Amino acid sequence: MTYCTGILLDDGVVLASDSRTNAGIDRVSTFRKMHVFERPGDRFFALLTAGNLSLTQGVISLLTEWLDNSDPERDLWASPTMFTAAHAVGNAIRDMHKVDGGYLQEHEVDFTASFILAGQVRGGPLRLFMIYDAGNFIEALGDSNYFQIGEVKYGKPILDRVLTPTTPLEEAAKCALVSMDSTIRSNLSVGPPLDLAIIRRDEFKLATHISIDVDNEYFNMIRKRWGFALREVFSELPNPNW
Amino acid sequence: MTYCTGILLDDGVVLASDSRTNAGIDRVSTFRKMHVFERPGDRFFALLTAGNLSLTQGVISLLTEWLDNSDPERDLWASPTMFTAAHAVGNAIRDMHKVDGGYLQEHEVDFTASFILAGQVRGGPLRLFMIYDAGNFIEALGDSNYFQIGEVKYGKPILDRVLTPTTPLEEAAKCALVSMDSTIRSNLSVGPPLDLAIIRRDEFKLATHISIDVDNEYFNMIRKRWGFALREVFSELPNPNW
Repeated sequence: MTYCTGILLDDGVVLASDSRTNAGIDRVSTFRKMHVFERPGDRFFALLTAGNLSLTQGVISLLTEWLDNSDPERDLWASPTMFTAAHAVGNAIRDMHKVDGGYLQEHEVDFTASFILAGQVRGGPLRLFMIYDAGNFIEALGDSNYFQIGEVKYGKPILDRVLTPTTPLEEAAKCALVSMDSTIRSNLSVGPPLDLAIIRRDEFKLATHISIDVDNEYFNMIRKRWGFALREVFSELPNPNW
Repeated sequence: MTYCTGILLDDGVVLASDSRTNAGIDRVSTFRKMHVFERPGDRFFALLTAGNLSLTQGVISLLTEWLDNSDPERDLWASPTMFTAAHAVGNAIRDMHKVDGGYLQEHEVDFTASFILAGQVRGGPLRLFMIYDAGNFIEALGDSNYFQIGEVKYGKPILDRVLTPTTPLEEAAKCALVSMDSTIRSNLSVGPPLDLAIIRRDEFKLATHISIDVDNEYFNMIRKRWGFALREVFSELPNPNW
């Protein structure tokens, strides 16, 4: 299983992903389920992946092979906008399905995946998309400023309760980790090391990438204090007198 | 959609259920998704239902028709133990599938359901079961002292964090309502009025049943204070200095 979340804020984007039951690929920067394509100063794309690993790896491999082929619908270096870049990811998913889909269906293997794409192309805004298995996608706009993929439910309530577009990046990073903690506690197939990335608007590069393992002091402090405080708050609520 | 939870404690059982998109049946006590069969002083059964409504209503109707037919595998008044009573529920599910299953399959309708059964038969202990669509069941034993059916994930973290077998009944009722609140906030198809029931060990009857509607003062206080306190606790956690 997987849990990834991407949060679009006035100041930038926060991305978080777990790493359990996964492998890496060789090219471009790969932080387990977080894949980064960047040309600093010009454009920046980060992809979070969930689903069938051969499919998600295939998509990343195709996108990597397509770099510099000058097809704006496929080459991330040639995409004029984030909208076109999201199309390129959708095209990679569709190509993977065309090549492998039939065989996987014969074996009754679940061959689906979903993706979160964050990025900015010089001249355009920083944007956040969720791309579905069919290659179509939606964009975070207005109050709907975050996406989740994988095991999404346990970690959703805290995102709903605290995030707004004006939330500072560091606070959103803290929120993503609390969301990750709730998911890890309830689903054993989601687990550390986690990847946490912060992207500042108009920087066209990863501002911060932290790999958070079981011995990360900040994450352990958050987990311990959050759990303790929740129980405190709960015990302070009056019981019903029924 | 539905959310129901049943919690087994040293002092008794707490049951909670929502009511959205549902109807009632006529016989025995019916609180929307909570159905009670009781012979005060002798035996008590409460069933929570989730899934296809014609299936869950059919199961309750069969169990009602079977009362006094003296078949210990079907008649809840004749069940010598809670184990046999859980079998009776399983038999009703299986009979419904035998009668209607084929037709529903032809129409590709999802014809599945799940149940939580709590109860006590004089001479035996208070017990809590989860009964699956195939008619088989598991029992709450040891540390696994609660079950959920329907939209289970949003409301699970708080149950995991605060419940133990020694939790007092009133505190468990508060916990069930916080769990219900988290679910209602995240899934619009779960909603009030809610039913909350408390059963004390060895009383063989419903100790408390409360119907909680949108204007219930206690539930509104819990919702407001819990949400406020969560945001307070979150804002007091230090941000990362990355």
